[in-house]
Amino acid sequence: MSAIITSPSLASVNIGILGLGVVGSSTVNILKENYDELLRRTGYDIVIKKAAVRNLEKSRICSIEGITLTDNVYDVIQDPEIDIIIELIGGIELSKEYVLEAISQGKHIVTANKALIATHGDKIFSYAHDQNVIVAFEAAVAGGIPIIKILREGLVGNKIKSIVGILNGTGNFILTKMQNEGVAFINALGDAQRLGYAEADPTADIEGIDTAQKLSILSSIAFGTSLRYADVYIEGISHIKHIDLLCAKNLGYTIKHLAYAERNDINIELRVYPALIANTHALAKIDGVTNGVLINANAVGRTVYYGDGAGGLPTASAVIADLIDVIRTTAVHPKNRVPSLSFQPASLINYTVNSIEKAIFSYYLRFLITDPANAITTNINIIAAKYGIKLFESKNMSNLIDTDNLSTVVITDKTTERLMNLFILELQNNYNFTDDNIIKLRICDHGC
Amino acid sequence: MSAIITSPSLASVNIGILGLGVVGSSTVNILKENYDELLRRTGYDIVIKKAAVRNLEKSRICSIEGITLTDNVYDVIQDPEIDIIIELIGGIELSKEYVLEAISQGKHIVTANKALIATHGDKIFSYAHDQNVIVAFEAAVAGGIPIIKILREGLVGNKIKSIVGILNGTGNFILTKMQNEGVAFINALGDAQRLGYAEADPTADIEGIDTAQKLSILSSIAFGTSLRYADVYIEGISHIKHIDLLCAKNLGYTIKHLAYAERNDINIELRVYPALIANTHALAKIDGVTNGVLINANAVGRTVYYGDGAGGLPTASAVIADLIDVIRTTAVHPKNRVPSLSFQPASLINYTVNSIEKAIFSYYLRFLITDPANAITTNINIIAAKYGIKLFESKNMSNLIDTDNLSTVVITDKTTERLMNLFILELQNNYNFTDDNIIKLRICDHGC
Repeated sequence: MSAIITSPSLASVNIGILGLGVVGSSTVNILKENYDELLRRTGYDIVIKKAAVRNLEKSRICSIEGITLTDNVYDVIQDPEIDIIIELIGGIELSKEYVLEAISQGKHIVTANKALIATHGDKIFSYAHDQNVIVAFEAAVAGGIPIIKILREGLVGNKIKSIVGILNGTGNFILTKMQNEGVAFINALGDAQRLGYAEADPTADIEGIDTAQKLSILSSIAFGTSLRYADVYIEGISHIKHIDLLCAKNLGYTIKHLAYAERNDINIELRVYPALIANTHALAKIDGVTNGVLINANAVGRTVYYGDGAGGLPTASAVIADLIDVIRTTAVHPKNRVPSLSFQPASLINYTVNSIEKAIFSYYLRFLITDPANAITTNINIIAAKYGIKLFESKNMSNLIDTDNLSTVVITDKTTERLMNLFILELQNNYNFTDDNIIKLRICDHGC
Repeated sequence: MSAIITSPSLASVNIGILGLGVVGSSTVNILKENYDELLRRTGYDIVIKKAAVRNLEKSRICSIEGITLTDNVYDVIQDPEIDIIIELIGGIELSKEYVLEAISQGKHIVTANKALIATHGDKIFSYAHDQNVIVAFEAAVAGGIPIIKILREGLVGNKIKSIVGILNGTGNFILTKMQNEGVAFINALGDAQRLGYAEADPTADIEGIDTAQKLSILSSIAFGTSLRYADVYIEGISHIKHIDLLCAKNLGYTIKHLAYAERNDINIELRVYPALIANTHALAKIDGVTNGVLINANAVGRTVYYGDGAGGLPTASAVIADLIDVIRTTAVHPKNRVPSLSFQPASLINYTVNSIEKAIFSYYLRFLITDPANAITTNINIIAAKYGIKLFESKNMSNLIDTDNLSTVVITDKTTERLMNLFILELQNNYNFTDDNIIKLRICDHGC
């Protein structure tokens, strides 16, 4: 079965949607609201034929006029009259099953599912390639910012050097709220949940999993590698305290949960962690639920993109852009289509992902000293010197906290992650510090 | 003759370049430097067959190995083995002639020529449509930022409400330099010329012509209108004084040379002028030769894009992206291609461009008062009231200038451009003010 719509005079396209939650409903609403504009721009009448939902009785936030609802996903993906399936149910294993079945039926796929793409993308793209169908996933990264199109097509002439991104709106909302309103992490998280930004189980957002999935997709496109989600170094933000944001601010920095990918001659770096970035950095003012991406490429230099990274409408914007792309591209011979990950399937590059142990940073260290006379303040330079680490004089931050505990903040010269970890381990062993009492954050200077 | 490359197994594409100046040479250099990456990404061997140059003897800043140089443009555009012409010679009338001839020969076109597109785009696109060839022009606006692809494809699902842009790197360099270093306009312009940012005749850059050409292209794509360059309201920046930047800064603003396009229900606004924008505005920190664009759209909300807007390498990045797009798209039936201006040729929307006289702004007014006892200071509120204009108390700016002349700065409440102009006319008539003695700048608040 071939999924190539060969007739260029085709005037209408039938689509099926899996899931009518916030993104699904927004997609329906925007397709209806902008119907005339889309018809004018593309020349196609887009017909939403069927939608699969979990509960047929549930009230909807979109008009379902003209759409056949079903609670059986296979009613949609096996409908021979449907050309394109929009997968918006999330999750990983079930979605994978549905997407693979839809591909086997010759359907093109549009999905917003970063977890699915990051985890099973290679298998899905390879199967889609065999079946001559397209799998589009702009909505999987950075919501409404067309960052995948930018990387894969807009900057196609460039060799991409590095990508720095704020890719999780929930985490950025929490850090912004902590910074601006002085609230604790747990309270900022609670606000994010009340406002519907964070899910009941916020683990994927705050522990960097969601960001790592998105980063693995971007780096795969940028560097021509297979998807390397499992190789991303990941640190979350739940250990960040308000005092860290205050101290950072006092030093001219802000703290952001960064995704970082870089290619050097032979290897790539893939990391997600909270980091201090200078207030003048292009991403320093990306606040709240906004996502931002800085791309450094060999021809164009540095370009920056930002906008709402999540929510129904921005995600629907990306879903519809993909839908139009798929419709336009169906008449293209597969060889001439934009490859899913910007590489030819037969020629994956096998870069090694570097261990973070070898990476070099300056660090921000905050020690919580319950006893002001603690010997650490006199011995720390001696211990640091053992590892070749230079400590810079830091501002006295004690005026920034309202507890009886003293926080001492130190900024270090550049050293490797490995030496820094050894240094901290010795401090922990010698002075009974717990993880809670020593906060280590990397400083992202130049690119990052 | 059909220009559609129908064979999907075509492995090499011959291109011809018109012009080997800075952009042409950078394009050659990047095509060579990123050859492996481009081959891997696209599967195509891109062969630069010929290049037309004015002077065959001139030394080149790119390797011309393997490229046949000619000083006869027609040697390139009439070569039956060349599939795609990259036009990088600039100018308007001669380029138009070359491009139309190349189209008649069935060649696809890639151009960086905004003046050509803004002036003759409708005719060129219509002829290209008849001949089944593609005219790509990403490099015509905002250099390396793929803003045309973003608008035309990435945000295709949206109804675009407005676009605000800093689209001329030279002008932005001058304003930034005046702001940061306190130099006069003429000196900042001289520096721009010495650094190669501004041409010997800087008129197009500093008088807003270049910006207006780019704005007309963006608004045409965003709103589905024909190109309306002649209808853009244009004000340059050569009358801006350093004192205006100082006063603006003192009031919490910065001055930028803005391009602004907006669609309301029935009409569009198209304007280029220097304006005060708040320091918190998304474009306030776009400094130097950087270009930035803020797009407000009905699904995605506000998204912002910025990067180097000019120069050889960023422009080459856009030229090559277009080249790859053209190569990929040649196998698509013309009906399925992305339309040049995002609208179907048969259905141009005939919006009226509103006269700026009807537009509503708050204004920044600076009066240069040579006689401190000038009656204007006592009578200005009375005159303003005649036109329904409220003046807000302004800060005393006299401490900011080191001359004996007093500058009085006033911020007004919102009023129409028409009433503001009448008010200023009366002041000029009553107090012998010259244009040099009253500076009027619009304040761009919300969107702009």
